[in-house]
Amino acid sequence: MRLETLAIVGVGLIGGSIGIAARRRGIADRIIGVDQHADTLQLASSAGLIDESSLDLSQAASRANLVVFCTPVDRIAAQVLGAAPHCRPGTLLTDVGSTKARIVAGIEEQLPPHVAFVGGHPLAGSEKQGPSHANPDLFVNRVVAVTPTARTKHIALAQIVSFWQSLGASVRQLSPEEHDDALALTSHLPHLVAPALAGILPQHWRELTASGFRDTTRLAASNPALWATILRSNRNAVLRELDRYLNRLQQFHDALGKDDVNALLALLKEGKKAKDEIGSPGHDEKRA
Amino acid sequence: MRLETLAIVGVGLIGGSIGIAARRRGIADRIIGVDQHADTLQLASSAGLIDESSLDLSQAASRANLVVFCTPVDRIAAQVLGAAPHCRPGTLLTDVGSTKARIVAGIEEQLPPHVAFVGGHPLAGSEKQGPSHANPDLFVNRVVAVTPTARTKHIALAQIVSFWQSLGASVRQLSPEEHDDALALTSHLPHLVAPALAGILPQHWRELTASGFRDTTRLAASNPALWATILRSNRNAVLRELDRYLNRLQQFHDALGKDDVNALLALLKEGKKAKDEIGSPGHDEKRA
Repeated sequence: MRLETLAIVGVGLIGGSIGIAARRRGIADRIIGVDQHADTLQLASSAGLIDESSLDLSQAASRANLVVFCTPVDRIAAQVLGAAPHCRPGTLLTDVGSTKARIVAGIEEQLPPHVAFVGGHPLAGSEKQGPSHANPDLFVNRVVAVTPTARTKHIALAQIVSFWQSLGASVRQLSPEEHDDALALTSHLPHLVAPALAGILPQHWRELTASGFRDTTRLAASNPALWATILRSNRNAVLRELDRYLNRLQQFHDALGKDDVNALLALLKEGKKAKDEIGSPGHDEKRA
Repeated sequence: MRLETLAIVGVGLIGGSIGIAARRRGIADRIIGVDQHADTLQLASSAGLIDESSLDLSQAASRANLVVFCTPVDRIAAQVLGAAPHCRPGTLLTDVGSTKARIVAGIEEQLPPHVAFVGGHPLAGSEKQGPSHANPDLFVNRVVAVTPTARTKHIALAQIVSFWQSLGASVRQLSPEEHDDALALTSHLPHLVAPALAGILPQHWRELTASGFRDTTRLAASNPALWATILRSNRNAVLRELDRYLNRLQQFHDALGKDDVNALLALLKEGKKAKDEIGSPGHDEKRA
């Protein structure tokens, strides 16, 4: 894939990593970073993540062939719809939001026909934030979910798939609704599980934690405002998965309460089986 | 610390790591590994974790100045009491069991007066098992809980503290009951949290997990039989901590269900505050 101009809106960890990954791989002649914070743009420029900086989304969008929105999930739809009228015909728009159904539906309802939008979500990231943590290999061997709908143009979908593949990622296509159902469990629920566990730790027991507790609670270090927004934007699916999790914990409670060793072993073995099948994060793999 | 003969009963990950750590640091003239599995002893010998192998606990105990029991928590008390009559006067006995109250009380009731026992628990380990994962630095900069009681002899306590410090660990003294209350949350509960989450993952969503899910569920890979025994041996405290965790998850459920952004943010922030204060596992730190 080769673009003339790539615009990245929101130059944080993900946006900055897209910038440096695209630069290193020669995917675009020009990469414009767009952000509302001048200091973020300054940081991204001096780190070599982007070629140009802009505080003006409309102006940057008017010059781009591809615009990638890396902003919080509650702002993406409005920003895409705000930028679209300024785009040249054929401009491709995509995003990296952690939830997809509301964003995609909100955009598709009102998008002008001279541009195309396809939703995306790289399953990569970190509890760390900001362009200073950008990583040119953040997407290598990682899954990116791309969420076409019945309205998605084939050529636009093929270009977005090609864009992510050119950054080293492996693409899975699924509907926005399927995405949100699955991610409610695989990403959003762990962002409740971890802070719920960390939050009940009394101060005087902190020195008695080891890396088991620390790994299980790693996601508790994530940005609360960012995650409150993501959880709320996928509320029903997250509540459904949380109910399934509470039910499973209650099964553990019952087994332990009755000292039913067979029931307890069966529950532990079921967890181990699933865990052994998905594997552990490798040493060479970035954390998401 | 300098011993003539150290005996290690159960030469798995922890026992094997004690052996290699003690050898490298010159803590004992002779290290005898005791195990019921000849192949485990063979593996430990050829990896240089121990100097001698023995299938006979009584015989090894009769030659040792210090015997460290690294066997499952439901066997430690009986093994200590079985070995004690064979020990020479002044022999020191300790263990590494993940729960302490039952073990220590069971031993102190019946221990012959010519030997001394002090309970211990290194907060180090791994979901991996066996002597092939032994690590001479497993205890470096890690906390070891040592659990004296009113009956503990000062000289025995000082020797056990010195033993762990000489392997690089930092020692915390607390009562067996305090230990079990704290570890119910900091170690035992995460061994329910992780397999409960892993166990509700449908097979077709596995490819949509990233390292957030994988880290949160790391402990689900642990040995089910070993952990069923540990959980049962600290049942009341684990149930109490599980109740606190269920209650906290219900608070998350209520906040999200009512779309109460302030309540949701407060819960996420409380988790982040605790997490930021305990920190993350460092790159140079072994996992426990």
